[in-house]
Amino acid sequence: MTDPWATFGADLHIDPTGASGLRAGLMDALREAARTGRLAPGTRLPSSRTLAADLGIARNTVADAYAELVAEGWLTARQGSGTRVAQRAEPRRTAAPAPRSRPPRSSPAHSLMPGTPDLATFPRAEWLKAARRALSSAPNDAFGYGDPRGRVELRTVLAEYLARARGVYADPERIVLCAGFLHGLTLMGKVLRRRRVREVAVESYGLDIHTRLLTEAGLRIPCLPLDHLGTRTAGLHGMRGAGAVLLTPAHQFPTGVPLHPDRRAAAVDWARGTGGVILEDDYDGEFRYDRQPVGALQGLDPEHVVYLGTASKSLAPGLRMGWMVVPEAMVGEVTEAKGVSDWASSALDQLTLAEFMASGAYDRHVRSMRLRYRNRRDQLVAALAERAPSIRISGIAAGLHAVLELPEGGEAETVRAAAWQGLAVQGLAYFRHPDAELRREALVIGYGTPSDSAWAGTLDALCRVLP
Amino acid sequence: MTDPWATFGADLHIDPTGASGLRAGLMDALREAARTGRLAPGTRLPSSRTLAADLGIARNTVADAYAELVAEGWLTARQGSGTRVAQRAEPRRTAAPAPRSRPPRSSPAHSLMPGTPDLATFPRAEWLKAARRALSSAPNDAFGYGDPRGRVELRTVLAEYLARARGVYADPERIVLCAGFLHGLTLMGKVLRRRRVREVAVESYGLDIHTRLLTEAGLRIPCLPLDHLGTRTAGLHGMRGAGAVLLTPAHQFPTGVPLHPDRRAAAVDWARGTGGVILEDDYDGEFRYDRQPVGALQGLDPEHVVYLGTASKSLAPGLRMGWMVVPEAMVGEVTEAKGVSDWASSALDQLTLAEFMASGAYDRHVRSMRLRYRNRRDQLVAALAERAPSIRISGIAAGLHAVLELPEGGEAETVRAAAWQGLAVQGLAYFRHPDAELRREALVIGYGTPSDSAWAGTLDALCRVLP
Repeated sequence: MTDPWATFGADLHIDPTGASGLRAGLMDALREAARTGRLAPGTRLPSSRTLAADLGIARNTVADAYAELVAEGWLTARQGSGTRVAQRAEPRRTAAPAPRSRPPRSSPAHSLMPGTPDLATFPRAEWLKAARRALSSAPNDAFGYGDPRGRVELRTVLAEYLARARGVYADPERIVLCAGFLHGLTLMGKVLRRRRVREVAVESYGLDIHTRLLTEAGLRIPCLPLDHLGTRTAGLHGMRGAGAVLLTPAHQFPTGVPLHPDRRAAAVDWARGTGGVILEDDYDGEFRYDRQPVGALQGLDPEHVVYLGTASKSLAPGLRMGWMVVPEAMVGEVTEAKGVSDWASSALDQLTLAEFMASGAYDRHVRSMRLRYRNRRDQLVAALAERAPSIRISGIAAGLHAVLELPEGGEAETVRAAAWQGLAVQGLAYFRHPDAELRREALVIGYGTPSDSAWAGTLDALCRVLP
Repeated sequence: MTDPWATFGADLHIDPTGASGLRAGLMDALREAARTGRLAPGTRLPSSRTLAADLGIARNTVADAYAELVAEGWLTARQGSGTRVAQRAEPRRTAAPAPRSRPPRSSPAHSLMPGTPDLATFPRAEWLKAARRALSSAPNDAFGYGDPRGRVELRTVLAEYLARARGVYADPERIVLCAGFLHGLTLMGKVLRRRRVREVAVESYGLDIHTRLLTEAGLRIPCLPLDHLGTRTAGLHGMRGAGAVLLTPAHQFPTGVPLHPDRRAAAVDWARGTGGVILEDDYDGEFRYDRQPVGALQGLDPEHVVYLGTASKSLAPGLRMGWMVVPEAMVGEVTEAKGVSDWASSALDQLTLAEFMASGAYDRHVRSMRLRYRNRRDQLVAALAERAPSIRISGIAAGLHAVLELPEGGEAETVRAAAWQGLAVQGLAYFRHPDAELRREALVIGYGTPSDSAWAGTLDALCRVLP
């Protein structure tokens, strides 16, 4: 029989005052010893009586701990052979710290990367109030699995809001909540593939993550040309294979052009004529500065358009909250695509957003953000007029970003110069479809991104790096 | 020129006192009229001057509304032809109410369906407190897109908790948060397919949604036999094609057997020998009644086991919150699979759960639920002993459900009888893999499902329908 202290070494840590108690402490210590190899596989442990006496604890405590560890597979107990460290509990290879999948980069001092609203403005107090109301009034079944479309309370409030603010033909039965636009697009990828669609036409400038998601769903993504009136949707008629088209009608991303009425009409005509589906990405439809927002395309033909909206620009991406308004005939398919894997944003968040919208806090927040972003846009335009008068700025009627046209060769150079100055900006090239005809050089400036306190410095940094 | 009132009819509703104002009211009315066909395509509208005079509002208001509706595609304006209702704004077919994808069924009076905790016990007040702390202390970047693994605050708290409570070897770098177990399994399906795995072995009884998810990911799902010691993992060695295995080691679902230590060992040996991956579904590991919970299999070999845990049983499915602890070498792959589509539970919920766990509220909740469920289990056992003494009950050492063995032919009959009595129960057949050798007849009784107030009546209803 080995002396237990000799076996375990003096650093077998058992903390009898720990919250988890003596047995758990002993088990932790033994697991750790087996894991690190301090107790080699096959080592026979002292009897529970011996170890208990040695540690000054009850024998049953040790016996129980041994039994648990046998059940977990750390130890083996065989008649006549005592309790031993299991053969397979070999030392785990001493792990180097796990490689971080995103290596920590030194953050740039300033950022004008598009795609994120001013995160400092999240209405924390109002949100908490809404959460309190939601938690106190939620029925018990809100904590269960529920309707794959999401909570009816939020779908009802959204239907009213989307009709009023975005001209969407919506009723709660055809709204499906999702965890942001990307989730919605993934679901649509599935639905389209199940409908045997093989191609989804996209705009010639857009987010590469969107085209990647569609590609991963097994869809080809031919692109439609784009000009100063928006995407040339008439081109859809020449695309034999396309069963759907992804558009940003209110505010083309990233060029900022609203889709011309004739082209809205052409898209709808195509959808009606061919049974095609229009995916309307209304990512920042609430933010239009010089007149009322342009209503959603979906209102023109709710049976051929899937409207996709999100709280990521109007509130915060961290909420992971989006919504789809789908053609009546497609509700079952979308619900089924979603139902199988069933995740989405939490029911509590859905109820909280419903309270937040119903109380008017959402409208107030959007109005206040619209003012704030319009001021920034005006300051951006004024600063450029004064300090970089040769730069043409476009796409400024709406949204959280603007496009700064650059002379040939200017884009890459300016992005590099900005990086040197600690300013993160994105060139237009990043958004270009490989087959895009039009090649412009420009920066896409997300003026919604900085906080108020950082804005002046960031704008100054931008002016300094522009040619 | 038509008289505007004759064109629009008296029910053109324009509410000048409405929050949205005159112009919006006029636009809504015109859109609605075009949508319903009350204004037929091609109808020429009165001039803005005429309509304004008629409605007693400013001409600019009408002109602006017309311009907006042209931009949205509802109207067309051509030089010399006036403003007309666009051709494509044909009347939408009058929609019957969208078919509900899940037809409303009359809810049964009582439910013992497994898989859901008692939703009435969600700790609303404590959760709200945690949410308040989370909202007031969250850094601004918590509202942004963030690390695809999820918030580091929650990963850090979870690492400590999982090590302490479940014997999991966890550090925050290898934890990936997800929106519940199904999301985690979907991600693993992707990762395995990218590794060219073609088969994932499963237990011969389990949830069909799990096998469906794996099948949809393109994986075959051969099954391993099961007996009173749990799944016969030694069978893995005979499965040439299997690159992974999905197990419920702490408490086999639904039969309730803990995996025998030798079979834990066999699974780990197989994984080490073949480079296979063990997916450990630890869905209710916290709930063990007669002794300490059996620790997670993952602790035996963190480099070959993907541990999947969830708040769905310990708190509520409605939170959509789960976590994976993945082998160091797989962190990048899982992060990439998740990163592309990027959704998960909201950052606010993640921070709230971190506060909830760090404050000890989670431990208190789990302890209190353990007591509550243990009492129910004891009452179930006692009631059966008295009122249905011929029924053997098993799988009762842990979890939120028990298995009631029935004589041949008894399962379908009892499920039907229960339905007639307004009691929802699930037969074991529902969980059987098509290739399962063992065919038992039994009910899987989710005694965690009813609320406290419904429990006594539900238990009584069960006893009445048993043979």
